[in-house]
Amino acid sequence: MPAESLQIGLIGAGRIGQVHAASLASRIPAARMLMVADVVEDAAQACARQYGIPQAVRDYHALLANPQIEAVVICSATDTHAQIIAEAAQAGKHIFCEKPIALSLGAIDAALQAVEQAGVKLQVGFNRRFDANFRRVRDAVVRGEIGQPELLHIISRDPAPPPLAYIKASGGMFLDMTIHDFDMARFLIGSEVEEVYVAAGVIVDPAIGEAGDVDTAVILLKFANGTIGTIENSRRAVYGYDQRVEILGSAGAIRIDNNHPNTAVISTADSVHHDLPLNFFMTRYTESYVAELAAFVEAVLHDTAVLVSGQDARVPVVMGLAARMSYVEHRPVRVHDIPS
Amino acid sequence: MPAESLQIGLIGAGRIGQVHAASLASRIPAARMLMVADVVEDAAQACARQYGIPQAVRDYHALLANPQIEAVVICSATDTHAQIIAEAAQAGKHIFCEKPIALSLGAIDAALQAVEQAGVKLQVGFNRRFDANFRRVRDAVVRGEIGQPELLHIISRDPAPPPLAYIKASGGMFLDMTIHDFDMARFLIGSEVEEVYVAAGVIVDPAIGEAGDVDTAVILLKFANGTIGTIENSRRAVYGYDQRVEILGSAGAIRIDNNHPNTAVISTADSVHHDLPLNFFMTRYTESYVAELAAFVEAVLHDTAVLVSGQDARVPVVMGLAARMSYVEHRPVRVHDIPS
Amino acid sequence: MPAESLQIGLIGAGRIGQVHAASLASRIPAARMLMVADVVEDAAQACARQYGIPQAVRDYHALLANPQIEAVVICSATDTHAQIIAEAAQAGKHIFCEKPIALSLGAIDAALQAVEQAGVKLQVGFNRRFDANFRRVRDAVVRGEIGQPELLHIISRDPAPPPLAYIKASGGMFLDMTIHDFDMARFLIGSEVEEVYVAAGVIVDPAIGEAGDVDTAVILLKFANGTIGTIENSRRAVYGYDQRVEILGSAGAIRIDNNHPNTAVISTADSVHHDLPLNFFMTRYTESYVAELAAFVEAVLHDTAVLVSGQDARVPVVMGLAARMSYVEHRPVRVHDIPS
Amino acid sequence: MPAESLQIGLIGAGRIGQVHAASLASRIPAARMLMVADVVEDAAQACARQYGIPQAVRDYHALLANPQIEAVVICSATDTHAQIIAEAAQAGKHIFCEKPIALSLGAIDAALQAVEQAGVKLQVGFNRRFDANFRRVRDAVVRGEIGQPELLHIISRDPAPPPLAYIKASGGMFLDMTIHDFDMARFLIGSEVEEVYVAAGVIVDPAIGEAGDVDTAVILLKFANGTIGTIENSRRAVYGYDQRVEILGSAGAIRIDNNHPNTAVISTADSVHHDLPLNFFMTRYTESYVAELAAFVEAVLHDTAVLVSGQDARVPVVMGLAARMSYVEHRPVRVHDIPS
Repeated sequence: MPAESLQIGLIGAGRIGQVHAASLASRIPAARMLMVADVVEDAAQACARQYGIPQAVRDYHALLANPQIEAVVICSATDTHAQIIAEAAQAGKHIFCEKPIALSLGAIDAALQAVEQAGVKLQVGFNRRFDANFRRVRDAVVRGEIGQPELLHIISRDPAPPPLAYIKASGGMFLDMTIHDFDMARFLIGSEVEEVYVAAGVIVDPAIGEAGDVDTAVILLKFANGTIGTIENSRRAVYGYDQRVEILGSAGAIRIDNNHPNTAVISTADSVHHDLPLNFFMTRYTESYVAELAAFVEAVLHDTAVLVSGQDARVPVVMGLAARMSYVEHRPVRVHDIPS
Repeated sequence: MPAESLQIGLIGAGRIGQVHAASLASRIPAARMLMVADVVEDAAQACARQYGIPQAVRDYHALLANPQIEAVVICSATDTHAQIIAEAAQAGKHIFCEKPIALSLGAIDAALQAVEQAGVKLQVGFNRRFDANFRRVRDAVVRGEIGQPELLHIISRDPAPPPLAYIKASGGMFLDMTIHDFDMARFLIGSEVEEVYVAAGVIVDPAIGEAGDVDTAVILLKFANGTIGTIENSRRAVYGYDQRVEILGSAGAIRIDNNHPNTAVISTADSVHHDLPLNFFMTRYTESYVAELAAFVEAVLHDTAVLVSGQDARVPVVMGLAARMSYVEHRPVRVHDIPS
Repeated sequence: MPAESLQIGLIGAGRIGQVHAASLASRIPAARMLMVADVVEDAAQACARQYGIPQAVRDYHALLANPQIEAVVICSATDTHAQIIAEAAQAGKHIFCEKPIALSLGAIDAALQAVEQAGVKLQVGFNRRFDANFRRVRDAVVRGEIGQPELLHIISRDPAPPPLAYIKASGGMFLDMTIHDFDMARFLIGSEVEEVYVAAGVIVDPAIGEAGDVDTAVILLKFANGTIGTIENSRRAVYGYDQRVEILGSAGAIRIDNNHPNTAVISTADSVHHDLPLNFFMTRYTESYVAELAAFVEAVLHDTAVLVSGQDARVPVVMGLAARMSYVEHRPVRVHDIPS
Repeated sequence: MPAESLQIGLIGAGRIGQVHAASLASRIPAARMLMVADVVEDAAQACARQYGIPQAVRDYHALLANPQIEAVVICSATDTHAQIIAEAAQAGKHIFCEKPIALSLGAIDAALQAVEQAGVKLQVGFNRRFDANFRRVRDAVVRGEIGQPELLHIISRDPAPPPLAYIKASGGMFLDMTIHDFDMARFLIGSEVEEVYVAAGVIVDPAIGEAGDVDTAVILLKFANGTIGTIENSRRAVYGYDQRVEILGSAGAIRIDNNHPNTAVISTADSVHHDLPLNFFMTRYTESYVAELAAFVEAVLHDTAVLVSGQDARVPVVMGLAARMSYVEHRPVRVHDIPS
């Protein structure tokens, strides 16, 4: 156990909660989980057993009331994020919260205000910023390896649509799926998006349309620094999880490909082929989930700035709202025109 | 010499004229060039000597008047295409013409009408349709290898901007450069584009902006069959001529990469690297220039349909005009709204 | 903490010892380290602090005498392996030992006999068998994806030679470096090597030759099943750690490439390039070190066969001795002719 | 027609004869075929019609007697090469001859002596030297891009075995197939091979063994400059024609991959795949056949040295004989020990 460690409470023991529990338990020596809370008490207890967490509770308020706990990791249902952030801030806990904070700007702003008043740190779970591929692209831009960015293209496709129940509660594809790409666009280019235009449709599954959402979209972005970007989204790429980026700059270009489980190339009488890319975001982004939490623990322990701020959480939601408006009104929409 | 051959007159002995002369002289056994015309008579004579063409003239009318000549290959200045097409049609010659026929729809329609009245064949020089890579993409779509197309992405970047004088006479990037991509979009997807939206700017060179043109653009396309497409254009990719396409379909995806002069991978203490892609359209598309003329000669000799019709020449101009309007008016534009 | 766990003692807290300590501490929930021993007592204590091991000692006999300890992980100096294996076996401990057991067959056989008499499990550290790439190749062979193997080619190059002192104590390149490739050859093809022929030389550094070793070699292998194989070894590949394999079979071929830190492709005015491959065996094979220990813990807890047996440790040493003889005597050598 | 041209007679109108006829007719402006000879007179006449050659004969002596003919291209059966070379030299003709000159050194030396006495030029058809990929490797070595060569690996596999009748007359795999790789080894490394050791077998088809040949082989080469090389040969690679090379040098490495008909990557629910590589040597090496003849025509017209000399034709045969001896006697064989 390192001399310095951070005492953590985990709120939410579902899928992503367990991912973070595993990282905290075994990959981040400076982190120490003291409690886990889940509205399904069995889930909390199972998680505690699995990852050696001393205490499991149903109500996260018990966790916030524990004076030993210095920071919380919020993995509960999306519609509880803003409320828990505010309460955790008031309790003086540093906060790591899964994205998004909320789907309405009012709720986000209330949460961010509570954080600011409490003076605690808040990091939001845009894990892709910590992925080796995306980070390499950002590094190339920062170091000037490709000169000034001019064109950005993001491909972001899921292997298959989520259940309809999920889609109905998701806030729509722009706030559920594209939000990661909006964050990536700002992060990679290092400039804000001023205008969006969206072409979208229901191509994959009519039921998604009946649920009020789209399943395929292209979002055109104009950045303050002149870069023009596009995001390609689809709820279905039958060959797997497709996550690529390409930037053209004044002095060159950089692109990243998908991660594959191995480098094997097999040649037969029919074709030269590779295995499919890593299919699921948890295998594809495994290391980035560890890295984001490690960075959060580090930022709290050494009192440095978090790498994904509350503002970084807010802006992609504004972009998502602008995208939705562009789609509905069938016109380019300025991001500044979205009311708070 | 094959029993059956086509007697051809070449109009225009500039850069592309010489490319076609070389193909006709040495790669297409069934073609036989009888005359070459160029307003610069020395150029016509040099071309005749180089490629063994019996007769060189200044005025193409001499060529149209030659009853032995069955077909013409028009490589003269763009603003002469429509007029020469009309005259050649009236003279009963079959016609291969470099793209575009004209930059105004009125001129195009007059030329196409002359062709129709004369009952001659007209093929337009969208050579990329004959390239092995693009053709493989089209084949994948036709065969259903990737299911129904859903998203199309075309990357089309030149190594460096052309001279300003060229740009001023070009009709603008959408009609000069994107026109190839508009053709490719229709060809690959097999459906018409109904709406375009353009984001464009002057990023590469302010002088291009002063000349009234843009040098960087993203064009968003909505197809009649529901496919959504994007075209990325830049007048400058410092690493060379960048010509790629990717389609996502309901059953898979296909993408093509650039052609390289060799397959060598060199690993040093600094990096793992390849040589740059083929840099110039004439080396990149060499074989497609031969293939398009061979197909034209074949279509005339066997009286079959040409693979790139007059309508195929007209539609991309309409799309270019719509793109220009979208850029100027800053809104999505329906292609049907462009007046003839 | 899982219900079932294995109590482990670690012998040797050097570089590879720390790698295994990290895996046992954080990646293999069923493992529990009780003691660490190192002849440098400070090293043992530092390792204990870092990985939360309750007890650190200088003399491994204290560890063997601890009745709570069920298994040992031997990471001490190579020339101590055989002796410690024998003592650990006599103490009734299951054994994971780094390769090689010893450089002489007499010492190996004595150790294996002790293991057999004690009825404990012994797994040897040929970690590459647990790497995703090599495993994919083996799977292709086993599944018949490429038919019957016919030709095998292994490329195995270090980024730079080790210190001369290391080389002098290493037993020579064939027993130090090629030994991994000998194991891989048997593992991938699933057949024994009957004959070796070696061409080798001192190309990288004359000092290696003065130390009595070679630094560059090609080893030609004839397998019992008719497959012909080659191993290419070099102590220096300036671009990094180069570990590739290719097999031609009757129904196809499979090859694996190096692992890179990211998938980025950067195109500039000079070249199209990637970052160098992962440079060091510990970053290249990180996951395989975890996987081999996890497999060992599993085999002990569930009393199943280990995946790398004592015989698997012995045969590559025989092959190494045959390779040395082939090099010295400049002729093909049958592996069976090497005396025990 | 260029001012300067070379008047050529073609001897042999079989498969490779027709390839060269096509190149001379349409791709090499300075070449002019005056006659074609073939023992099957119909073949000669068909070839003449196809490629516009004025005269077709059965007996090549008529061609040698034609004073207008300055050079001959010999594509007849292998066992006639040496005799025709000698006669053509005596007739004062420059000579391009398909490989090999002969399968016995006595016959080769007699032919080379005739060439030397006559003072004519002789170029041998090792076309791969003119291929863009292999040439890029040679350039890298010459320019020092990878430092001093240390290890060479050549993969050379045919899609499928030739007919048994062909194999029986071929002189064996080492002189029929490996001979190209022997030439490539010398060409790429720029040093002579001093010793060979061969492991070979009959793995693909027992009938090949019954015909006295092998179908699978690895040839280990020691070069005068210290480089160690391996050649992997197989008569069958079900995925197509496999022609690759890799060199490790003191400052880096270079490798070349196969050529594919297109760059398409297709991703489906099963795999990420490419089309098979170009399958047949005539499509794979198309351009190299043109380039070697163009170089020959150039060398004759401008009286410069040919790029593949008579000695370049002789050495690979010596290597092939040494390989055969190594296989039969099961020992390394010094190339110098092969008697003339």
